[in-house]
Order: sequence, then C-alpha cells, then structure tokens
Amino acid sequence: MRMVDVIDHKRNGSALTNEEIKFFVDGVVDGSIPDYQTSALLMAIYFNGMADGEQAELAMQMLKSGDQLDLSDIPGNKVDKHSTGGVGDKTSIPLAPMIAALGIPIPMISGRGLGHTGGTLDKLEAIPGFNVELTEDQFKQQVKDIKLAIVGATGNIAPADKKIYALRDVTDTVDSIPLIAGSIMSKKIASGTDALVLDVKTGSGAFMKSGDQARDLAKALVSIGQNTGMDCMAVISDMNQPLGNMIGNALEIQESISILKGEGPADITDLVLTLGSQMVALAKKAKTLAEARAMLQAVIDNGKALESFRQMIVAQGGNGDVVDDPMLMPQAQFKIDLPAKADGVVAKMTADELGIASMLLGGGRQTKDDDLDYAVGLELHKKVGDPVKAGESLLTIYSNRESVDDIKTLLYDNIEIADHAEPIKLIHEIIK
Amino acid sequence: MRMVDVIDHKRNGSALTNEEIKFFVDGVVDGSIPDYQTSALLMAIYFNGMADGEQAELAMQMLKSGDQLDLSDIPGNKVDKHSTGGVGDKTSIPLAPMIAALGIPIPMISGRGLGHTGGTLDKLEAIPGFNVELTEDQFKQQVKDIKLAIVGATGNIAPADKKIYALRDVTDTVDSIPLIAGSIMSKKIASGTDALVLDVKTGSGAFMKSGDQARDLAKALVSIGQNTGMDCMAVISDMNQPLGNMIGNALEIQESISILKGEGPADITDLVLTLGSQMVALAKKAKTLAEARAMLQAVIDNGKALESFRQMIVAQGGNGDVVDDPMLMPQAQFKIDLPAKADGVVAKMTADELGIASMLLGGGRQTKDDDLDYAVGLELHKKVGDPVKAGESLLTIYSNRESVDDIKTLLYDNIEIADHAEPIKLIHEIIK
Repeated sequence: MRMVDVIDHKRNGSALTNEEIKFFVDGVVDGSIPDYQTSALLMAIYFNGMADGEQAELAMQMLKSGDQLDLSDIPGNKVDKHSTGGVGDKTSIPLAPMIAALGIPIPMISGRGLGHTGGTLDKLEAIPGFNVELTEDQFKQQVKDIKLAIVGATGNIAPADKKIYALRDVTDTVDSIPLIAGSIMSKKIASGTDALVLDVKTGSGAFMKSGDQARDLAKALVSIGQNTGMDCMAVISDMNQPLGNMIGNALEIQESISILKGEGPADITDLVLTLGSQMVALAKKAKTLAEARAMLQAVIDNGKALESFRQMIVAQGGNGDVVDDPMLMPQAQFKIDLPAKADGVVAKMTADELGIASMLLGGGRQTKDDDLDYAVGLELHKKVGDPVKAGESLLTIYSNRESVDDIKTLLYDNIEIADHAEPIKLIHEIIK
Repeated sequence: MRMVDVIDHKRNGSALTNEEIKFFVDGVVDGSIPDYQTSALLMAIYFNGMADGEQAELAMQMLKSGDQLDLSDIPGNKVDKHSTGGVGDKTSIPLAPMIAALGIPIPMISGRGLGHTGGTLDKLEAIPGFNVELTEDQFKQQVKDIKLAIVGATGNIAPADKKIYALRDVTDTVDSIPLIAGSIMSKKIASGTDALVLDVKTGSGAFMKSGDQARDLAKALVSIGQNTGMDCMAVISDMNQPLGNMIGNALEIQESISILKGEGPADITDLVLTLGSQMVALAKKAKTLAEARAMLQAVIDNGKALESFRQMIVAQGGNGDVVDDPMLMPQAQFKIDLPAKADGVVAKMTADELGIASMLLGGGRQTKDDDLDYAVGLELHKKVGDPVKAGESLLTIYSNRESVDDIKTLLYDNIEIADHAEPIKLIHEIIK
C-alpha cells in the first residue's frame, strides 16, 4: 500500500478502508509515513470529511496505537464525562464527587488548559499539595477505595494522536470534526470507562462556534463511542458567556465548593445537575433523569458530595481543609473592580476574551510551558441579562500586578451594555 | 507572518496576498517552511484553487526564486512552444526546424519523459551523438547562428518549482491547475522567450482527462503569460489516441523526418501546421494564419525545413545523415505484428495505455533514473475510424525481447474494434 494512494482516495472523496486507516496510523507511529504526507491527508480529511464508520475506525486505530487502561477489576459501571472546553467551566470538579457520593465509580483522566480555556488538572493544583500524577495502580486503588480519582494521562495513551495533533496545530487542520472526534475518543476509550457523557460546547468561547458544528461533532463523538460498545451520549451546552461567576484556578475551586454546598450560581449548577443525571442514568443507578437529579440534589443537601470531594483531595495529597476554608489556596494581592460605564442591561460577555483576560493575568498558558498563577482571575458580578447602573461593579479582577489597564481595556471591549439582552439558553440539545 | 495563517487563509477560501505568496515561495526555497506545512497549503490550493492574479503571482515568485535566461542579444521575436505531454507527440521536433527555416529564432528548452509520456530530449538522444546539454553561451550562440537549438534546462531555473513538484508528486497534489500552471509558466518565462504557443492536451492520454479541465488549464497558462507581457496563446488538442503512427524514441525521430519531408501522417502534420502557424503569427512574420500555414508548407516543399533539422543535429554533435537514413539510429531486434481479432472499425486506442506498452518495452521510464532503449516502441497501422479485417496487423511491436505476450495482452485490452467509431476531432479549441 502506498500513502499517496491513500491520500488520493480521500482527496477524491472516497471513504478510506479499515486497512488504509490502519496503514496510516501505524505509519504515523512508526515514522514510516513522512509528516508531509500526513499533513496532506489531514487537509484532505478537513475538506472531504469522514463517514461514521471511517471516523470510528480512525479513533480505534489511534486507540490501538498505545496503551489502554484495564479497569475491569473495579466493580460497578464506571462513568466518565468529557467537555470540549470552555471558559469558567469547572463542571468536572463538583460533578465527580457528587457521582462518587452515589457509589458510582468515576475514574477521571483530565487535561490541562491552553489559551483561553482552563484545565481541570490546573485548577485542582491550586489546592496546596494536590497531586494529579498517580501511577496506574494508585489510580485504580483510589477508585476502588473512594470511587473517585482525577488524574493526568498515564503511560503511552494514543501516541498516534500526540503526533497527529502536533501536526494539526501547525497545518491549520485542528477544526476538522473527524480529527477532533478521533483525538477525543481514542483517549477516552483508552481510559477504560464503561459509560461517557460528553459536554459539547457551542458559542464564542467554544471551539465549535456554531450550533450546527457542535451538533455534528456531538453526533460523531457519540457514534464512535457507541461503535465500541460504550454507553455514550452528548449534551450541547452554551459557551457564549463564561459558566458560573468565577474564572481562574483557585477561584474556580472556590466556586466548585459553593456548588457542592448547594450555593453555586444557577447556570453552572443547572449544567452540573443536567450532566450528572445523564451519568447516573448511564450508570443504571436511576430509571429516570428526574430520579437521578433528585439523587444528586440529595447528596448536595446531606453534605456527602462535599465530603467525597474532601476525601479525594486528601487521598491525592492535598489539604482537605480547603473545602471549609478556600482562603487556604493562593490569594491575589490586588482586587480591582471594573465599574459599568452606563446604565442598562448586560447584553454580551464574550467568553473567549474573558478567558484570555484571565490568561493574561497569569491564570492560563499562552504556550504549553508557561507557569500558572493560581490566585488570579475574574469574579463576575453581572451576567448576560442582568441590569446594571453606571459605576456599579461588573466584575472584580484578581491580580498580582497593580496595573491592569490592559486587562480593563480588553474587558470593556468585550462586555456590552445595551437597552435589552437576548436571553441565553444554557442547554441547547441532547444527542443520543 | 506565520505559515499557519497563510494555510488558514487559503483553506478558508481567501485569495493569498502577494506578500503571502512571496513568503511561501521564499520559505520553501530557503527551507524555513517545513515540508508538512507546504504540503498542507498545496492540498488547500488543490481544493480551493487560486484566482487569476494569485496564480500569476505564484508563477512570478517561483520564477524569481532562480535564474532567468537573458536572450535579449538574439535579434528577432523569439518564439517557443510547450506541450502538456502526450503519447506519440513528437510535435516539437519537426516544428522547431520549420519555424527556424522561416528565420524566426526558436530557443527551445525541453524536458524528458516519465510514465506513459515521452520527452523531446529523450527522442533527440536516439540520434547518435546528439548532445542536449549545451552551456548557456553555446545555446545562445547556436540560436544566433542557425536560429534553432533544443536543450535541457541549464542553471538554477525555478528551484521553488523543483522542491514543490517533488512534494506534489508524493502528496497527491499534482493535478491542481494553479500548481501545474505555476510550474510550467515559471520555467517558460525563465527561458526568456518573447512569445509562446501552448499545446494543452485533453483525453485519456493527457493529464487533463476532460475538456473543461483542459480549458481551465489553458486559460490559466495564457493568463499568466500575458500578465508578464509575453505573447501567449493555447491550442487544446486531442490525446484520446496516440498522435501520428509512431511511439518510441528512434521511431518518433523517423516520423518527424517524414513530416519534415511532407510525408507524415495527416493528424500530426495538421497539428504541427496548426501550432506552427500560431507561432509564425505571434512572431509577426505573417498577417494571417492562412499566410503562416502557406509559409510553413513552402519550407517543407522546398526542403529548407529538413535542412534546418540536419543543421541543428550537426550543431549539437549528432550524425546529420540520419535525416536521409533513419536506419542509422538504433534498430529493434524483433518486429512483431498484432493481428486484429475481428472484422470491424477501430473504435478506441487508449493513448496512455499504448504509451505504457512502449514504456514497458524499454522505451520510457517508470522511475526517473531508468535507462532507455531508443529502438523499441510501436508502429500503428490503424487508427480510430480505420476499417480492419480479422488477421490484419493493427500495429507492429518493435522489441529487443522475443516474448512480448504481456505487451500484446495490454494492447488488445486497449484497442477496441466495433461496428462503428465516433470520429475524433484533433483541434478542440483555441484560447487567446
């Protein structure tokens, strides 16, 4: 088989055969296919797409290119959740302990943030002592013991994806649905979960700017998961404005604790309960979504969800007292309010630009080797639809530098105050 | 400027700016743009094409990446001809001496064959002693002295094209009109001619299988040439069956001599006179095409065209007696007839497959380092539309191996005898 013929088939709009996909992925991993042929195929896939079976095979071959976690000795239906990433999206952090508090094993492998989006691992590391690097045995033992662990990827998971992603990044082939889907699902299948709830974001702060793109991606992800026998569904949720009120690592842990206490903002709490009830249903612990939601509300109300979070922090070497006193996490030196310039209603808070503001304060990475400042970020006092008066604080900037004029300019440019606001619908669609 | 942004603009359907095209071509030549980004851009160009101004700029930047011949000290309007390549297409060989015999300088830089198509330089090398590698000074002096030289490219012509072509070949981005046009025209403009007639082939034996593709390519080529101030036009001619009766190096020289004597087959003679009269007109030696055609017929009839060919052979170190006795060229050991299996009319002779038959006999190259057997090839006794009787010879195989069963099978598979044949029109269109 010649790679140029594989490129030709895709370029001319044919579906690649399983043998061609295996030849491609194997060749990427063993280095026998040069990068210039890989990037030509990636661009042809960008233009001509892939059929359902084809993209499932791509994910499977990328999966098989590396190690797979075997979680079969952990009893129960293991569930996981994956989000395509957004701003202020700390959903996993309160959600995982709630699920674990119901006795459902949740072995979660998470990632770090880049650009305007945050990463679950980065946020957890704002907790003094918290260790996200467990061995495979430690990870499994912790899930057996307390039903819950959140760690970074261990071992040689989907090396084909690592190589292909590095090329996509520099050849403008990142936003191709079959390639995104293959990348996400190869890693999620490798993590050994039985069921998976996908949170596909749409809007200005999301990778998929339009609802159609988000729907296509959600369908691709669910179809790949189901093809492998995984119980899998997707929620399409809004990312036009940040989720919740906090953006920044320690600030998002603080807000997660509020959610676990039943005191979180309405939007993020609703999303956590929506995703969580789907997870409980997939784990077959409830017959209806309403029943599942009530079960989740119960572990919030009786404190079990918060206790589960404390247990996980302690098990992973962190200071569990943080759940009682979030001030034990790094605190910013300066808190600077951003006053509204006019009376009106908040009509727009562009999510990605607010994420960039937090990044520029030191809370996120511009390149993958940047160090993080866990203390900094934004606390929103107003969200889209809220009335404001001139001079009233729109948000507080948490900073370790005194002058934040650049940040203020960026924020004013991306917060619109108008006569009225279009309401934002949080949950757009459910894809099964 | 970042290459990933250049790729992004083309991928999203924008026209690249002149600065972006220069950045790309410069980066390819100096190695600062890695091959995997170049191939991603080439594939994006394959899908999204280029506007007229864009592809002219690409050709100009590829031209500027290397040396240009300065022919300004050769007096007169210099004309050249370029064909996109076909089977049995020896047009340049009789055409150039006919033009030179009219006193028009014809400094022709030609190429070699690959795959099913032959190359002018290879054919000329079937003449004992013929040297296609002149220095730039020798080349110019010969054109001054006898108006005519046919040589291989000298110096560092369009190095960007060399690198880009090597990548196109292995990334399935060869058949992209802006890339083909940039490659051809950067080299033709570099050769320093004042006027250029393009022979764009269409049909099974051509690169452009459909008439629409051929028309698009012809328009792109002419538009690029005219943009640089060159007098330029294109003829779209048929390549569904081989041109003339001879395929193979020495055999095509033999047929070229017949054409120069006015004894050539009708189709190739017509094409030579059609292209030639356009060249005479572009060189401003005739007011009408009819006048130009009569002038060409005159140099055939009075023997001046044949003498011009002999002069060129001698000037380039070859044995000029070949024009009187083609048997001085290498002769094949075996001549094997291919008898028709049925009565009827020849309905199809697939040009590319007949070219491959000649290549497999040793007359062409499968890879660019293959040696050639100048003696071998095919002599067609029948062409599309000719009636045949079962047992009558369709063609003679000239071979240096006794067993040619593989070749016979290939030929029978690609020559169709039927009740009637659709007539083939040789000249499809003129593009100015």
